[in-house]
Amino acid sequence: MQQEITFFQRDVLKEKPDTASLGFGKYYSDYMFVMDYHVENGWHDPRIIPYAPLTLDPAAMVFHYGQAIFEGLKAYKSADGTIQLFRPEKNMKRLNDSCDRLCIPQIDESFLLSAIKQLIFTEKDWIPDGEGTSLYIRPFIFSTEPYLGVRPANQYKLLVILSPSGAYYGDQLSPVKIYVEEQYVRAVIGGVGHVKTSGNYAASMKAQEKAEANGFAQILWLDAKENKYVEEVGSMNIFFKINGEVVTPKLNGSILPGVTRDSVIELLKYWNIPVHEAKISIEEIFAAHERGELEVFGAGTAAVISPVGELNWNERSITINDNKIGQLSQRIYEEITGIQIGKKADPFNWTVKVAPVEV
Amino acid sequence: MQQEITFFQRDVLKEKPDTASLGFGKYYSDYMFVMDYHVENGWHDPRIIPYAPLTLDPAAMVFHYGQAIFEGLKAYKSADGTIQLFRPEKNMKRLNDSCDRLCIPQIDESFLLSAIKQLIFTEKDWIPDGEGTSLYIRPFIFSTEPYLGVRPANQYKLLVILSPSGAYYGDQLSPVKIYVEEQYVRAVIGGVGHVKTSGNYAASMKAQEKAEANGFAQILWLDAKENKYVEEVGSMNIFFKINGEVVTPKLNGSILPGVTRDSVIELLKYWNIPVHEAKISIEEIFAAHERGELEVFGAGTAAVISPVGELNWNERSITINDNKIGQLSQRIYEEITGIQIGKKADPFNWTVKVAPVEV
Repeated sequence: MQQEITFFQRDVLKEKPDTASLGFGKYYSDYMFVMDYHVENGWHDPRIIPYAPLTLDPAAMVFHYGQAIFEGLKAYKSADGTIQLFRPEKNMKRLNDSCDRLCIPQIDESFLLSAIKQLIFTEKDWIPDGEGTSLYIRPFIFSTEPYLGVRPANQYKLLVILSPSGAYYGDQLSPVKIYVEEQYVRAVIGGVGHVKTSGNYAASMKAQEKAEANGFAQILWLDAKENKYVEEVGSMNIFFKINGEVVTPKLNGSILPGVTRDSVIELLKYWNIPVHEAKISIEEIFAAHERGELEVFGAGTAAVISPVGELNWNERSITINDNKIGQLSQRIYEEITGIQIGKKADPFNWTVKVAPVEV
Repeated sequence: MQQEITFFQRDVLKEKPDTASLGFGKYYSDYMFVMDYHVENGWHDPRIIPYAPLTLDPAAMVFHYGQAIFEGLKAYKSADGTIQLFRPEKNMKRLNDSCDRLCIPQIDESFLLSAIKQLIFTEKDWIPDGEGTSLYIRPFIFSTEPYLGVRPANQYKLLVILSPSGAYYGDQLSPVKIYVEEQYVRAVIGGVGHVKTSGNYAASMKAQEKAEANGFAQILWLDAKENKYVEEVGSMNIFFKINGEVVTPKLNGSILPGVTRDSVIELLKYWNIPVHEAKISIEEIFAAHERGELEVFGAGTAAVISPVGELNWNERSITINDNKIGQLSQRIYEEITGIQIGKKADPFNWTVKVAPVEV
């Protein structure tokens, strides 16, 4: 059922931050989209309202039993002023996959996408100009019912907030140092690693803190059962180019199915570069490096492509591609970001335009 | 540093619910304890204030990255009106263990315990009378900083709320049917299963829902690596009596170290009943049943002792102890609840009295 979205105008708009000082996730736009769920009447009362604090009971179940999921995507402004999204239907679908695993009621994907478009159009002046910038879109759902028994809640809130973001890597890509984690794990088969739920991120912080204290930018997670197979890096998926072929860990139920991951695979196929999804041991990666054939990069919404310059595993450290940006990493980065901001042709129909909506 | 706890009086007290209708986690008392953390000035502003909704930014990190931990303990009123807690220092210690794993700043355990005592004394009229009832105490901490980057937050809130609870099992214990889960897992070594963080509970709901749909009260979780070894049942620890000896899964980093679990072990030792902590396969349990020697019970704060009457694993179903309460389960239940409510001697010094505090 398509519902009417109510709009509440705010009196005074916020001052917009300088593009140069944006960073990530620090500023929020003037409006947000909100919708409520109650077991008795489903998702209801969709509205675009001024960005403002939420009021929650201290017993709201999210604080205690963590039913909380989210998505992350971006709106881009092209040179001619067109606003576009990148494969947003994949995020809507994954949001529902997360709902399913966390026992949260399903949302109407096309309705939410139209609500997001309406919100973005309302907030179009918040989309920053400038190389590498975008308007980050954060849809999220959490349980609100005040109750201390452990069970799925009967009440939820869905919000979409917008945050203008700066370029992830100033002027150009720069390779990162990665620590291969053996003590802590991110997720396990049968768990929730394949969906975007808040607990995955909370669980990852301890290892990330340890890695940073040792001078590494990110963690490379291994599988939890054998501590042997590569899963993801930080909050990105990971790709290896070995001997002219590209390989990325196969989705196994504990790896997040990234939208950028999927786009990289599609792009490589389109370019006729062999690409495989497979179970890859960290040992194989180190062996490939000894043969001198390795290029490594992460793929995710935040950085798009993140070249890896160093891998440190179990006291062994390897420098990859002389700590320089790999040719393939650079090519994929330019292609995907080019499509996202409308500078390159989009043979895949990945981009979705945000046109004026009747309010 | 011991800090002064500010007290804000409310104008009108709530009406107290009927003892008969209490249930669990539905009603909250008149006051709550609150304390805030900021990276620049640590934990500060401890206060007892009227129970009221919280105000949080939509970007508050708890909604997105799930840094949220909690504890659960109870206050009991003895026949002579004495108010007592059961081993609360164990909960304070475990709260800090949870803080550590989730990158949340440590709290001053003795200060928090004194604050809890002061809150309970203020709310003493909320401790229900009547067999099996208690005042449930829920301390919890979550991240409040508005920020969308993934890292430990710089701001947190600690609250303690109180909820009068009814008897878990009406008049007497009653055995429950348990489903041994093979598809979903609760936790894995290297993860967060050994601490009380919200994400563990969110992740458990899908399997619990499936079990309930099939007529089972609870899940028995197996280890995530081999799907073979017993971990915990629902949100309790589990014990097996086999051939006159008692065994419970050894704490391995994915099992929650329950306060009731520890108390059962101590009690059995005191009674000279052999008790072991060991790695136990589900296969061994079914084999023990074939030899006719099995008694099974769960142990946790909510139900104290929960006899298991049926186990269903992989299409095999066994009835335990003729679906009757085991002698040992009954004896432990009576001893622990007797100590908790001051009806029995407390040779372990487990109980802590809540005496008037200068406000």
